[in-house]
Amino acid sequence: MTSDTRRVGLAIFGVGRMGQVHLGSILRMTTAHLKYIVEDNLQLGQEIARKNLVNDEVKVIRSQDDDQVFQDASIEGIIICTPTHLHEGLVRRGLKSAKAVFCEKPLAGSTEIIEACYKDAEKYDKPLLCAFNRRFDPGLCLMKQRLVQGEVGEVQCIKRCNRDNPPPTVEFLKMSGGIFQDQGIHDIDAVCWTIGEYPVSVFTQAHAFRKEIADCDDVDQVIIVMKFPSGCIASIDLSRHAVYGYDQRMEIFGSKGMLEQQNKAPTSIVHHNESGACKNPIEASFLQRYGEAYELELQHFINVVLGIEKEILVKKEEVIQICQITSACEESYRTGKPIFMSSFQTGAI
Amino acid sequence: MTSDTRRVGLAIFGVGRMGQVHLGSILRMTTAHLKYIVEDNLQLGQEIARKNLVNDEVKVIRSQDDDQVFQDASIEGIIICTPTHLHEGLVRRGLKSAKAVFCEKPLAGSTEIIEACYKDAEKYDKPLLCAFNRRFDPGLCLMKQRLVQGEVGEVQCIKRCNRDNPPPTVEFLKMSGGIFQDQGIHDIDAVCWTIGEYPVSVFTQAHAFRKEIADCDDVDQVIIVMKFPSGCIASIDLSRHAVYGYDQRMEIFGSKGMLEQQNKAPTSIVHHNESGACKNPIEASFLQRYGEAYELELQHFINVVLGIEKEILVKKEEVIQICQITSACEESYRTGKPIFMSSFQTGAI
Amino acid sequence: MTSDTRRVGLAIFGVGRMGQVHLGSILRMTTAHLKYIVEDNLQLGQEIARKNLVNDEVKVIRSQDDDQVFQDASIEGIIICTPTHLHEGLVRRGLKSAKAVFCEKPLAGSTEIIEACYKDAEKYDKPLLCAFNRRFDPGLCLMKQRLVQGEVGEVQCIKRCNRDNPPPTVEFLKMSGGIFQDQGIHDIDAVCWTIGEYPVSVFTQAHAFRKEIADCDDVDQVIIVMKFPSGCIASIDLSRHAVYGYDQRMEIFGSKGMLEQQNKAPTSIVHHNESGACKNPIEASFLQRYGEAYELELQHFINVVLGIEKEILVKKEEVIQICQITSACEESYRTGKPIFMSSFQTGAI
Amino acid sequence: MTSDTRRVGLAIFGVGRMGQVHLGSILRMTTAHLKYIVEDNLQLGQEIARKNLVNDEVKVIRSQDDDQVFQDASIEGIIICTPTHLHEGLVRRGLKSAKAVFCEKPLAGSTEIIEACYKDAEKYDKPLLCAFNRRFDPGLCLMKQRLVQGEVGEVQCIKRCNRDNPPPTVEFLKMSGGIFQDQGIHDIDAVCWTIGEYPVSVFTQAHAFRKEIADCDDVDQVIIVMKFPSGCIASIDLSRHAVYGYDQRMEIFGSKGMLEQQNKAPTSIVHHNESGACKNPIEASFLQRYGEAYELELQHFINVVLGIEKEILVKKEEVIQICQITSACEESYRTGKPIFMSSFQTGAI
Repeated sequence: MTSDTRRVGLAIFGVGRMGQVHLGSILRMTTAHLKYIVEDNLQLGQEIARKNLVNDEVKVIRSQDDDQVFQDASIEGIIICTPTHLHEGLVRRGLKSAKAVFCEKPLAGSTEIIEACYKDAEKYDKPLLCAFNRRFDPGLCLMKQRLVQGEVGEVQCIKRCNRDNPPPTVEFLKMSGGIFQDQGIHDIDAVCWTIGEYPVSVFTQAHAFRKEIADCDDVDQVIIVMKFPSGCIASIDLSRHAVYGYDQRMEIFGSKGMLEQQNKAPTSIVHHNESGACKNPIEASFLQRYGEAYELELQHFINVVLGIEKEILVKKEEVIQICQITSACEESYRTGKPIFMSSFQTGAI
Repeated sequence: MTSDTRRVGLAIFGVGRMGQVHLGSILRMTTAHLKYIVEDNLQLGQEIARKNLVNDEVKVIRSQDDDQVFQDASIEGIIICTPTHLHEGLVRRGLKSAKAVFCEKPLAGSTEIIEACYKDAEKYDKPLLCAFNRRFDPGLCLMKQRLVQGEVGEVQCIKRCNRDNPPPTVEFLKMSGGIFQDQGIHDIDAVCWTIGEYPVSVFTQAHAFRKEIADCDDVDQVIIVMKFPSGCIASIDLSRHAVYGYDQRMEIFGSKGMLEQQNKAPTSIVHHNESGACKNPIEASFLQRYGEAYELELQHFINVVLGIEKEILVKKEEVIQICQITSACEESYRTGKPIFMSSFQTGAI
Repeated sequence: MTSDTRRVGLAIFGVGRMGQVHLGSILRMTTAHLKYIVEDNLQLGQEIARKNLVNDEVKVIRSQDDDQVFQDASIEGIIICTPTHLHEGLVRRGLKSAKAVFCEKPLAGSTEIIEACYKDAEKYDKPLLCAFNRRFDPGLCLMKQRLVQGEVGEVQCIKRCNRDNPPPTVEFLKMSGGIFQDQGIHDIDAVCWTIGEYPVSVFTQAHAFRKEIADCDDVDQVIIVMKFPSGCIASIDLSRHAVYGYDQRMEIFGSKGMLEQQNKAPTSIVHHNESGACKNPIEASFLQRYGEAYELELQHFINVVLGIEKEILVKKEEVIQICQITSACEESYRTGKPIFMSSFQTGAI
Repeated sequence: MTSDTRRVGLAIFGVGRMGQVHLGSILRMTTAHLKYIVEDNLQLGQEIARKNLVNDEVKVIRSQDDDQVFQDASIEGIIICTPTHLHEGLVRRGLKSAKAVFCEKPLAGSTEIIEACYKDAEKYDKPLLCAFNRRFDPGLCLMKQRLVQGEVGEVQCIKRCNRDNPPPTVEFLKMSGGIFQDQGIHDIDAVCWTIGEYPVSVFTQAHAFRKEIADCDDVDQVIIVMKFPSGCIASIDLSRHAVYGYDQRMEIFGSKGMLEQQNKAPTSIVHHNESGACKNPIEASFLQRYGEAYELELQHFINVVLGIEKEILVKKEEVIQICQITSACEESYRTGKPIFMSSFQTGAI
């Protein structure tokens, strides 16, 4: 076999909701070779393996037995989809064992831990990818590219809408980290990355319409306003539930025009009757809407391991800044005041 | 007052459905001055006058008293909206009395009469406008203009859709002249005028879905195919009833792209729910959809009378050709055969 | 003539930009009878009169001669389109002379004067209409009606976008009163009126991208966030210039779905080529976009005078509240802080 | 392993354009196990194998060595993507060797051969699938399902548009079988299958705009009109090249409304500027547009082999009828006359 046909040996940690998404991508990818599924719920791990028809060579093991993964020299990368509190340990063990590491967001709950993880990545000279998947959405990439080409001129206003569907379960809500960390972080990253700036101040209004969400000390409707050094103003609106589907839109307005990313739909059927023209529903959930982004994100990771791409696209400083801005947005909601980003460097990414 | 403020004295014959449309336009037009309403149903004439708040100077009279109109030197133009069989008499009396004449389509049932009318128009040197209103639709004008500018390159295919709403009454259907003469003629004219050619052959398939239409020896669903000297092929589909509104679309396909005229809607409200995204209904009827075209058509007529525009846009030869093509389409349906237009000159308009 | 054909005698004060809009509506309206144009720029007044072909009975006079208007018993209503500082005098003289009064917004610069005007309206028992024209936009009315019918369930988020085109001249900007009073007030009213609530707090971010606007101590890009007693959160974004046309959109998001008002376009032509599918531009300016609303607004005023409608739709309390909220939005921008509406009654309209 | 995890052993014959499409599907499918690539251009076969990272167990062989495929008991199905004249031999050898057979359309050039193939399928009791891929397009399936549920009432008119992109090479055109057999057959099948009827008569107009197409005795612009026993009338327009992308639309009009299948686009980006609102291009070619349909088609074949689905969805009678109707459409173009389908049974499918 020639070098362009090499397959990267992989282990996946956790096959919950996100783990299953990434497992599916790995199996469809001809440059990836899955060798381990690490899952403490062994029955779940085996069921997922069987459903996906992974062949017998793939070992399904518990975390107590995961030393063999780190000691297995044929494993070049690990995919971490466990609960957040387990991220640090796995990331650092992986890097220390000379594995490339792909880790679901948030990398960790504190800036200190995030920095420690990246320090290890530098020390062991291995790629570490924090999974900000929106950056791999072909539509968003095209928006950024066309913005950079000058299609909207000087950017004056950005609006982004992120409304979830189907509504998360109460079980999930309790351990989600809250709407800002779980949902808003993607949009804060998407806006800052697209425009290439970090905000000088943020302000948030929020409300809990559903009682079970208020009971979690969380909210289900949010509007965030961010002001950037260039003068550009952005708004992000979040909701935990849009009955009409997974609503993901963005618009970038500037001196020369507007770029708009509309929702996508699985089919383009329109029914015309006395009530008007009814278009089929948009994508139902993040799985459909960002399915392509999840694959491209993993492909990017593997390409970096293979040396086909040189650099991890999500940088250490970006991860730290986006986490701090997200926390500031939440703080603004809790204090009722605008938060000024004086405590860290703002400006161009 | 300066010459640009002159008002054209007008009389209208017939205030049925189309007469009321044109009456409304006249009253809103600051360059028109209505003086007579000629209507044999005197009660209807008076009611329409009152509803429209026409002032007392407007005389409402019966046709038996219409000599005063033709003898009134302050009348410069007459608007004919009577049943078709009365057109010829009024058109020719009008022209002979030196009035400009605006006549609803069809000008007449036979080529001979149409020619006689236009001969009088030349003899008395007065404008005669046969109301092919589609030509005054701003959207269609824009389509033709952009086609002429080369936006679609060489035209290869034209499709036009004309579905009526609300469905005409049986009463109307009986005296409509049939779907080809009543409805299809507009689309045949629109296609030929836009492309600037007459067809070399036509073929029609048709069917009557509603019994009352079959009983009138008429059909309610038609597809016409026309082949043009340039190689361009056109299809026109007609229906007597679209429940979702007055469906009027066109597309022009060529070597460099496609121009499409979509339906219009009175508001642009979209409701998103579990069923999808439902846009408010399109224009409900010809009155809404072509309201602007009716006004512009009348304005054109008055502008020609005032000398602001030099020429009537609808030419004698066009009226004759379109009537013959329309008859050929109907003949194709009745014989089941394609009709070749060998009997008259085809080619560029 | 029967009572339903009565025409209301009117005088118009000021035929600048808005005056010309209303003059056009009056002339097309069969229930209105224009008798006076009061305009200190007499040449402009006469030119406008001639262009519109108003007949010789209409008197064009200077304000120094306007006593005759107030003394003319055939005048039932006056239409005030002068600069704002002249509103109070004309409104109160009109009411005292038993005329119905239609006055462009803002009625006045202070709550005290607004209250004084409405006190007179009550004292003399005459209608006073402050021209919040968006309320007469058929699309917005339909949005409100469908919201009230429950189509979106509990309202959780409202977004409104108002981007002007063509950009106002520097001359106009200097006397516009600023983007909040001139432009934002319409959207603040539209949001509060649609949802039927006043906000408990507002927050604004703004920026001046164009130097000439900064020089006027004004801004050209604004985002306002409002929180309502029900928990609903609204955002309004304003810009002084969208190159792609007059951008006027709104969305209402709730527990059962979303209602969206999209932009309108004069034609529905789409050109398909290698670059994609390009739809013709949207309405170019407020004149096109709200032309229908301006007519309906004036018709409502005349209907109230005629007794066909009982009540003026824009209420005293609403005008006062909307003006105070608008000022609070501006104050938030100037202070960088959220403003709490504790100083006056919030809650349901 | 349990029975639901069984993989079907497959061989593919021909890895030209369509072969590569199906090869990709097979490799992504966890229920398929590719064992042979049969390709006379051995270098192409090996290159395709390497590019797709198929593992070493897959044998790449020439057709002269293909006996081993038919003798290999682990092969349950064969996928035939060779030139049409080789179909019959492979189909019949496959069936005789107890393999399920998937064969690209057209199955064969004559009714006799098609019947012989299906006779063998019955004799050896093995599934034979002729790849009418449009039937597996999720959008078309949804259209049919909603039609059957009565959403459009009685069907009165169907229109289908199929414009190719990128334009086929002259090389391909010469061996394509002509626009009717190569392109139109899909739309004739889609219309008949959706509506559940065969036509009583067909009529075609066509033209060759490109010289190299005329030189092949072929045409590049076609309109077909079909009349059905129910009274329904259908039109199909074909073009060999739409510069704006692969244009695939359909509309079904009936007494209760219209169902419309619009084009799909890879992203939903809209750019708004002075020229209007420009949406990103639609899918560029059949590979993108029908990628999902190709996978579902192959999945259906494998499901039938596995017994998960009971019956092949494309029936013998349908294949024969559609081929005859396609030939009649071409004959109508060549003779200039409508063709009546009296020679075989028309009516409900």
